[in-house]
Amino acid sequence: MPLCADPPKITVYNTASRGLEIFQPHEEKHVKMYVCGPTVYDSAHLGHARTYIAFDAIIRFLESVGYRVTYVRNITDVGHLRETGEDRMIHGATRERKHPMEVADKYMMEFFKDMDMLNIRRPNIQPRASMHIVEIIEMVQGLISRGYAYRVDGSVYFDIMKVDDYGKLSGIRREELDRHRIEPDPRKRNSADFALWKEAPPDYPLSWPSPWGRGFPGWHIECSVMSMKYLGEQIDIHGGGQELVFPHHENEIAQSESFTGKKPFVKYWLHTGELTVGGRGMHKSLGNFITIRQALQNYDADTIRLFMLSSHYRSPLDYSESSMRQALENIMRIRGLLDHVNSLLAETKDDVDIDAEEREFLSKVEATRLGFIRAMADDFNTPEALSQLYELVRHSNSFINKRSKISSQVLQSISKNILDLCNSIGLLLDYKPPKLAADAEKLLDILIEVRAELRRRSMYDLSDTIRSRLSEIGLIVEDTREGTRVRVAR
Amino acid sequence: MPLCADPPKITVYNTASRGLEIFQPHEEKHVKMYVCGPTVYDSAHLGHARTYIAFDAIIRFLESVGYRVTYVRNITDVGHLRETGEDRMIHGATRERKHPMEVADKYMMEFFKDMDMLNIRRPNIQPRASMHIVEIIEMVQGLISRGYAYRVDGSVYFDIMKVDDYGKLSGIRREELDRHRIEPDPRKRNSADFALWKEAPPDYPLSWPSPWGRGFPGWHIECSVMSMKYLGEQIDIHGGGQELVFPHHENEIAQSESFTGKKPFVKYWLHTGELTVGGRGMHKSLGNFITIRQALQNYDADTIRLFMLSSHYRSPLDYSESSMRQALENIMRIRGLLDHVNSLLAETKDDVDIDAEEREFLSKVEATRLGFIRAMADDFNTPEALSQLYELVRHSNSFINKRSKISSQVLQSISKNILDLCNSIGLLLDYKPPKLAADAEKLLDILIEVRAELRRRSMYDLSDTIRSRLSEIGLIVEDTREGTRVRVAR
Repeated sequence: MPLCADPPKITVYNTASRGLEIFQPHEEKHVKMYVCGPTVYDSAHLGHARTYIAFDAIIRFLESVGYRVTYVRNITDVGHLRETGEDRMIHGATRERKHPMEVADKYMMEFFKDMDMLNIRRPNIQPRASMHIVEIIEMVQGLISRGYAYRVDGSVYFDIMKVDDYGKLSGIRREELDRHRIEPDPRKRNSADFALWKEAPPDYPLSWPSPWGRGFPGWHIECSVMSMKYLGEQIDIHGGGQELVFPHHENEIAQSESFTGKKPFVKYWLHTGELTVGGRGMHKSLGNFITIRQALQNYDADTIRLFMLSSHYRSPLDYSESSMRQALENIMRIRGLLDHVNSLLAETKDDVDIDAEEREFLSKVEATRLGFIRAMADDFNTPEALSQLYELVRHSNSFINKRSKISSQVLQSISKNILDLCNSIGLLLDYKPPKLAADAEKLLDILIEVRAELRRRSMYDLSDTIRSRLSEIGLIVEDTREGTRVRVAR
Repeated sequence: MPLCADPPKITVYNTASRGLEIFQPHEEKHVKMYVCGPTVYDSAHLGHARTYIAFDAIIRFLESVGYRVTYVRNITDVGHLRETGEDRMIHGATRERKHPMEVADKYMMEFFKDMDMLNIRRPNIQPRASMHIVEIIEMVQGLISRGYAYRVDGSVYFDIMKVDDYGKLSGIRREELDRHRIEPDPRKRNSADFALWKEAPPDYPLSWPSPWGRGFPGWHIECSVMSMKYLGEQIDIHGGGQELVFPHHENEIAQSESFTGKKPFVKYWLHTGELTVGGRGMHKSLGNFITIRQALQNYDADTIRLFMLSSHYRSPLDYSESSMRQALENIMRIRGLLDHVNSLLAETKDDVDIDAEEREFLSKVEATRLGFIRAMADDFNTPEALSQLYELVRHSNSFINKRSKISSQVLQSISKNILDLCNSIGLLLDYKPPKLAADAEKLLDILIEVRAELRRRSMYDLSDTIRSRLSEIGLIVEDTREGTRVRVAR
């Protein structure tokens, strides 16, 4: 069931135009979306979680109001260099004394699991850079033949002076460009030209034959190639972290549009703000580096998501334990209302027509629902949408508390609206206290202990109640000479 | 801790020699192993589970006796044709109206999860065929230049008449070859020649440029390429289902050895027997097709594994509900002994020297342990190894039952041996009755209910015991006007 009968008018902030625009994908009700994925040389951290949760909420909301979303998120397993010029995959391979593709496999599998654990909808396609060496070579050849790229020995560079509007996404000025280049190759035409293909040293483990000799792709070209291969020459949304605006996305535009004869590559560029910890960017050296894995040991997926969505996706967001506890409180509050409503519904047998007060309450519910949708349609303003949701929780709680009797229609409406809104941004509300599941055996121990004590006191009615209630849930209590045992009924 | 101080002498049945051989990898204590992975166009079924569990038990056993195993299992996402000549990925894409790479992604992710759920150790590298188009083209070029392959328009075929020992793995006779060919191309030199590269129809979604025009790789070449890339020209173990012996593995040998100048490609060829259901091969049309997913809804990973290992990996194995129930019984029996031993250990405080009867029992334990290792070292004879394990369980149970007191050293030895042996073939014994975890909330409900009744009867000492025992495991009981609620302590 869609969240509303007609898709609302959605506005999005486009990094390219630096302003809000009406959202109108190329195809009616179909969104083609590409988000830059991780370089799989290390564990994913909360910064990754922030970006992918933010885009997940956007995707889920678009889907919940009637769009089909074809979502591609890549896996970078070659060509993404560190500031030292070393490939991140080679760095990981040296660190772990493994083949780079073994490192890629390890962290890719870990990443897949992290994303599943965070309840992030799987992309339709998760292409790997190394799957597209042929297509990358083809595109580089195309850029050379169109005059946008040139060869220097075994490497190929993109000539940024051939593109009049280079810098249009980031707004970077030509005179600033030099400061950003890490490549020292003095044979480049312009110091800001970037590599499409790099010559590899002899016996380099991540290299392939090409018309220019053995080498490997530059980092930027992979996204142009994979986006074009799976989504076509023109896509609707391209997303990523803010730090990718320049040079990564700027260069993607230059490559893609030069290749396709200036067809606008991306309609809407969306970028997520930075996640800081204690006001500073996460760095292993600062000791404030938190992996997704670590976070999931302390908090469930809904809590992490609620924290991430408590700030607008474009704003910076600071991680702290107190913010996480606040998020957990909020999840528990929503969940508590749902539990309460469900228990009231279980007791409400005879249904009657709703009265005037209830009608008025239902119109408030509808108003907050619309307020939520309006907030999400306004550049996916999750903090505002959440405040509408909290409003709904508050109203519902106070309405339930002041009334001695509530009709099931009203209770169902509360439950349905809470679930609809939460699910539309990926909150499942299936929260169980993390320890509770693991403690089933301990709970059973307490029950058996209490039952033994009741038997010692000859209170057999109560000890038998325990036995029969356990048998109802499939646990058979057996008293043997060695003590009481519980086995599972088959 | 390794299972034994020195690796035992292991013998393996080699399909190539049709006999048992002493296992001696190329590198001391390091095994390079390649197993053919799934074609990801549909859900994996119990036949896949059988093969990958069998090889997992082999790998875990090798690792538990001191070998390092570098394990590569590929993902086939192009080039594996159906009998109709249609690529399985295209077949899946048509069925689901998706891009073939979206189908690949969907079933690959599902497969990864299935393997994790079955507790199958992740391979070191899981390369995809589509990641190696460049290397495939290089190898095909190499085979052409060495005179083993020839071009026919946009396709390239391997000339089996150039290989004297073609058929050495499967033992197939030249005159039988014709019957197995599905390719109708009349321009082939010999009807049994197989495709290394196939010309693609126009606008074919799974095609790449090559020296012979746009096309795609044949199925067999990918495994030669990926095995060589990640494990080198000569590997120790190559595994797969029996149905792959011919033509897939036969052709891998022909390609690989022709390319490397006749270096023996694989030292030991291991093949798993067929899994049948009701005596017949699994087929969707027969209604006896069971996905891994479905099986995991009814049985836990240990039960499925024990069933699979109850037959020797080379023998056919018939799936039935009664065999599965038998496997579950056996797991419960092992688990029951462990539980019993652990509870006895908890009661055994004062430790005394073991007596003569215990010493005799411990030597029996050691004998079954050695029997288990001997069975596994004899071509990974899991049914015999399991019978040693059951012997150990039986002996232990009867020893425990007949003795009034057992020293903790003996109890620990039982527990350690059971765990060592089970873990060495991938049985975790962390089996919890599937319902128990989910029932934590129900158990809590019963406790709260009993506590309320105790309070009604003014038995506050017992009701307070329940409260304090719950608080010990982090659950805070709060009595409110609306009733009793339990919250998680933070």
